[in-house]
Amino acid sequence: MKEEWLIDALATASESKIVMLVIDGLGGLPHALTGMTELESAKTPVMDELAASSTCGLIHPILPGITPGSGPAHLALFGYDPLVYDIGRGVLSALGIGMELKPDDVAARINFCTVENGVITDRRAGRISTEKNAELCSLIKENVKVDGLDFELRPEKEHRAALVLKGKGLSDKLTDSDPQRTGMPPLTVHPEDPHDREALATAELVNAFIRGVAELLANQHPANMILARGFSKYPSLRSMQERYKLKPAAIATYPMYKGLAKLVGMAVLPTGESFGEQVDTLEQYWNEYDFFYIHYKKTDSRGEDGDFEGKVRAIEEVDSSLKRILRLQPEVIAVTGDHSTPALLRSHSWHPNPLILRSQYESPDEVRSFSERECRKGGLGIFNAKYLMNLLMASAGRLEKYGA
Amino acid sequence: MKEEWLIDALATASESKIVMLVIDGLGGLPHALTGMTELESAKTPVMDELAASSTCGLIHPILPGITPGSGPAHLALFGYDPLVYDIGRGVLSALGIGMELKPDDVAARINFCTVENGVITDRRAGRISTEKNAELCSLIKENVKVDGLDFELRPEKEHRAALVLKGKGLSDKLTDSDPQRTGMPPLTVHPEDPHDREALATAELVNAFIRGVAELLANQHPANMILARGFSKYPSLRSMQERYKLKPAAIATYPMYKGLAKLVGMAVLPTGESFGEQVDTLEQYWNEYDFFYIHYKKTDSRGEDGDFEGKVRAIEEVDSSLKRILRLQPEVIAVTGDHSTPALLRSHSWHPNPLILRSQYESPDEVRSFSERECRKGGLGIFNAKYLMNLLMASAGRLEKYGA
Repeated sequence: MKEEWLIDALATASESKIVMLVIDGLGGLPHALTGMTELESAKTPVMDELAASSTCGLIHPILPGITPGSGPAHLALFGYDPLVYDIGRGVLSALGIGMELKPDDVAARINFCTVENGVITDRRAGRISTEKNAELCSLIKENVKVDGLDFELRPEKEHRAALVLKGKGLSDKLTDSDPQRTGMPPLTVHPEDPHDREALATAELVNAFIRGVAELLANQHPANMILARGFSKYPSLRSMQERYKLKPAAIATYPMYKGLAKLVGMAVLPTGESFGEQVDTLEQYWNEYDFFYIHYKKTDSRGEDGDFEGKVRAIEEVDSSLKRILRLQPEVIAVTGDHSTPALLRSHSWHPNPLILRSQYESPDEVRSFSERECRKGGLGIFNAKYLMNLLMASAGRLEKYGA
Repeated sequence: MKEEWLIDALATASESKIVMLVIDGLGGLPHALTGMTELESAKTPVMDELAASSTCGLIHPILPGITPGSGPAHLALFGYDPLVYDIGRGVLSALGIGMELKPDDVAARINFCTVENGVITDRRAGRISTEKNAELCSLIKENVKVDGLDFELRPEKEHRAALVLKGKGLSDKLTDSDPQRTGMPPLTVHPEDPHDREALATAELVNAFIRGVAELLANQHPANMILARGFSKYPSLRSMQERYKLKPAAIATYPMYKGLAKLVGMAVLPTGESFGEQVDTLEQYWNEYDFFYIHYKKTDSRGEDGDFEGKVRAIEEVDSSLKRILRLQPEVIAVTGDHSTPALLRSHSWHPNPLILRSQYESPDEVRSFSERECRKGGLGIFNAKYLMNLLMASAGRLEKYGA
C-alpha cells in the first residue's frame, strides 16, 4: 500500500468535527535583543492554556531543511504528499489572484521585464508598481489579438501577472519563455515533445501572443516585454470528501488559500477580513460541515515585511478570538502554521512549526505554553506535515484499523 | 519529485561556507563503572559551549536499528540516499587501501582461506598476519598469468585483500566465488545473466585467475586459496558540485574516506596525521573552497579496539583544536559522527549520533553540553543522516523555496 493511500483506505464516516487553524508563517526565530521568537514574545494566554492541556509537537512543512511555498505547504497539511502532487506555477499564480480555471484552461506566470537590443536586461522591469502593471494588463487585453486564442491577463504584485489561455484543445506541455537569467533574449515557447500536435499548436498561439505584446509595448520603459513560465492546467485531485469522508469547508480571506482549498474539494465560505469575522463565519456554518480549515494570513505578511512587532500583534489577534472556537467544542482542534516566516529572514523558512493537537484521545505532555521551543518537548515529537491529517482523522475517530 | 532530487532542484550558489566535522564512530554506550559514555566522560569545553549556543539533535546513520559500514554512512552524510546509491564491496575495499579505479576496472574483495579435500574449512585462513598477506599478494602478482587479464592485488588487514581487474570490456555482473560458509567448495564465478557475453568472458578470466592462485598456493598453509566477492565498478555519481553548487574539499587521513570523498566529487587536500595538522590544512585552503568535510578517524579505531579511555582521549584531541575551526567563522558548522562505535561493542553500531548544528538561522535549544543524552533534548529532534545536507544547505542560504 502506498503511504498516501492509507488514509483513503481507512477513512470512515463519523459525527465528529475537526478544526484546523493555520496561522500562516507562524514559526519564527529569536529577536536579537530578547532572545525570544515572535510567538514567545506574544501574549497568548488562550493558546498557552490550550497547549498545556493538549499534546504538542513540531512539524516539518515538507522535509528537514526544505522551505516551501504556500502551495506545497498547504497540500501537506491537507494530507496530500507535496512531492507527489506538484501544482504548476501558472495555476498557483492564477489561484493566488482568484482567477477561475476551467479544466481546459492553461495558466502561466508572467513577469513584465526589460529587453534592450534584443536581450533581457531586467527580469523584473525594475519592479514596476502594481498600478502600472494593471494598466499594462488592460492595454494588452484591449489591443493584442491572436486568431483562435482567448485569454485573461491579470496583475499580481509589482512586475508579476497571471495569464490564462482559454479554449478547447490547449496543452500545457510547453517550455518557458523565461530563461531565468539576463543577458540573453527571451526564449521561444516550444512543445515539450516536438511530436505533440496539441502542444505545437498551443505554442504557436503563445508565441504569437508574446510577439503581439512585444510590438504593443515596444515604446514603453522599463516594462517593454513579458516572460512566461510554468504553463499548467488545473490539476484534478481526489477531493477530501472522497478521500476522508469529510464535509470540508474553508474560511480564508486571501484568494491563494481559497484556491488551494477548492483544489482539494472544500467549500469556500464567505467571510470578513478580520480573524473575529472568520470566527463569526465558523459559528454560523458550524452545523453544516465537519472539517473547517481556517487560514490566518497576517502573521506571514508581517514576517515577510520583517515586522517582528507586527507579527507579534497578529499572533495576539488570533489568541483573542481563539476561545470562541474552543467554545464550539470541536472533537479535534489543531493549531499550527504552514511554514515559518521569521521576521529576521523576511521570507518563508524551513524551520518546523509548533503544533497543538487537542482531542479527548491525546494526553497532555510537558508543554506548558505555545512556542517553537516548548513544542520540542511535545508528545508528538517532530514529524512531516503530510502526516497531520492522519492524526486529526484518528483523533476524530475517523480512521479504521489497518489490517487485522 | 523524488525526495533525493529536491536538493538538486533547489540548490543555489552563495558565498557562505559550510564545515562538516565527522568524528568517526563518535556515539558510544555507558561505561559499566561510571554510567557515562565516551563523549560524556571526555572533557570537551569547546564542544560543550558550541552545543549550548547551537541547535542540536540526533541522527540515525541509515534508519533506526541499522548499523552501517563507512560507505553508506558517509554517503548519507553527504546527502546521497544510502539505499539508492549502493557501492560494491569490491570498490569499497579498493578505495579503503587507496587503489585508483578507472571506469572500466572491476574490483573484488578477496579473502585468503583454507581449503582441505576440496572444501573450505576456514574462510579467513586462521586470520593470517597482514605481513603474510602482503607476501602472498606479491607472490601471486609475480607468478599468476592469465592471457588477456591485467590485475592488481593488494593486502588489506589480516586475511583481507583487494583485487582490481584492469582492461577494456570487463563486466562486474558476476556472482561471488565465496559461498559465505565452510564445508563446501569455493564456487565457480558465473555471469549474473548467462546471455551476457561480456560477463561470460570476464567470468572465464576470473576463474582462470583463481585456478592459477590455487595451483600456486597449493602447498601453503593455512592460506592456500582465495575467495572473491562483491565484483563491482567505480560508480558514477553526480558530484556535490553539480548537485549542490558547492566547491567541496575533504581533509581526511585514511584512504577509505579520501576515496569516498572523491566519489562525490570532492577535492582531497594533502594533510598531516594529527587533527591539529588537519586544521592547519583547513586554514590553509579556507579561501579556496566553500564546503569542507573533515574526517577524524581515531575515535572509531579506539572504539573498535574496545579502548574506552583511548576513545575518550581521541575526543579530547578534537576538542582541543576545535576553537581554531570556529575562529574561521564558517556560516554553518556541523559536528557529528558517521555512526556510533561504542568501546563496549568493539564495532560499529546502530545508535544515533549526537549532532551540533550552528548557524545564525538556528536558535539555541535546551542542550547544555555535547553528548548522546543531551542531544536528545535538541531542537532538531532525531532524524536520518541523509537529511543533514538539506539542513546545512538551508542554514547556509543555499536552498531556494520549493514551489510557490
